[in-house]
Amino acid sequence: MVFTKSLNIETTRELDVVNLTEKVEEAVSESGIANGLVNVFAKGSTCGITTIEYEPGLIKDLGAILERIAPDEEDFEYLHQQRWNDYNGHSHIRASILGCSVTVPLIDNALALGTWQQIVLIELDVRKRNREVIITVMD
Amino acid sequence: MVFTKSLNIETTRELDVVNLTEKVEEAVSESGIANGLVNVFAKGSTCGITTIEYEPGLIKDLGAILERIAPDEEDFEYLHQQRWNDYNGHSHIRASILGCSVTVPLIDNALALGTWQQIVLIELDVRKRNREVIITVMD
Amino acid sequence: MVFTKSLNIETTRELDVVNLTEKVEEAVSESGIANGLVNVFAKGSTCGITTIEYEPGLIKDLGAILERIAPDEEDFEYLHQQRWNDYNGHSHIRASILGCSVTVPLIDNALALGTWQQIVLIELDVRKRNREVIITVMD
Repeated sequence: MVFTKSLNIETTRELDVVNLTEKVEEAVSESGIANGLVNVFAKGSTCGITTIEYEPGLIKDLGAILERIAPDEEDFEYLHQQRWNDYNGHSHIRASILGCSVTVPLIDNALALGTWQQIVLIELDVRKRNREVIITVMD
Repeated sequence: MVFTKSLNIETTRELDVVNLTEKVEEAVSESGIANGLVNVFAKGSTCGITTIEYEPGLIKDLGAILERIAPDEEDFEYLHQQRWNDYNGHSHIRASILGCSVTVPLIDNALALGTWQQIVLIELDVRKRNREVIITVMD
Repeated sequence: MVFTKSLNIETTRELDVVNLTEKVEEAVSESGIANGLVNVFAKGSTCGITTIEYEPGLIKDLGAILERIAPDEEDFEYLHQQRWNDYNGHSHIRASILGCSVTVPLIDNALALGTWQQIVLIELDVRKRNREVIITVMD
């Protein structure tokens, strides 16, 4: 069986991190599936999905380290910037490295996450965006 | 149901990026499966699979940032290099960080990708290679 | 069909890398499933799952590059550290970037891995830990 649910997530700014865990749990509950896999996927090339302890300090630390990995256009010359001049070359690269989905085991109606392991969407574009997140539950 | 298809991809050089999206769509069409999950997996420890806007500038930017993350053997001393002397320690490390697969939702016969979100193989080894990519479609 | 198996893995120290490949093959064998997908997932926010050539030099190289990407608390000021003072802000960030799972195709009873491509758990926390790894086999 396959259950699919689409979420509409409005982010507020670059590096906004949205905790999706409760919404994923709701979708699992709606699916009626007890055991299998749950995939959480973000459409778009300038946002990411990962797991993290959803703690305000750590959320900011993640942004700071992403800035080290792929600096913004003030500190690194992106060819994407030369072509489109939309200042989000770094956003695309960070998204490619972080990844746009996670797949989590579902055991006895519960996501098999660690205690401090939340599923999050991170806005990597340079402004707020509306994001579509697809949750797929399969057994 | 499980549908599996193997692709043979010849890369041309280090940091060659191959857009797999159409081939994945063909496999989905062949599978006859309408809803589920599609996994795209690269065999090998020196290549990666990710999503990116397939734009020539951005493709080069990705290579440049990977060089910042895990510099090649001229700029960083890899123990793997001391052992094997094949100059691809950086290739292995970049592959481990980028990841070797993506899993994408399939909804009503279509991959749930964003408009600018392509599925790509990136050659991380120091020379052209033949790569086997496995596409798995499940419902 | 869904087959789930939980592994208990005791790591020995920060940056310990445990080769899980044989244990995943055992689980696949126990599942009786011949074709599908195998997901290997680590519970917890300070460890990672990836693929790599399991070679001692390369294992150390991976740790060295992770130290470049997200330096430890001696070399970078984490807000997580200011809050909790447990010196593992870098562990969390490395885990979010590396990812906590891999999904591998299963074809004719065998994992579709490359010759040098092993599935590993990497301990990213600052001390040895007991880790729960969930293997899910689906067809």
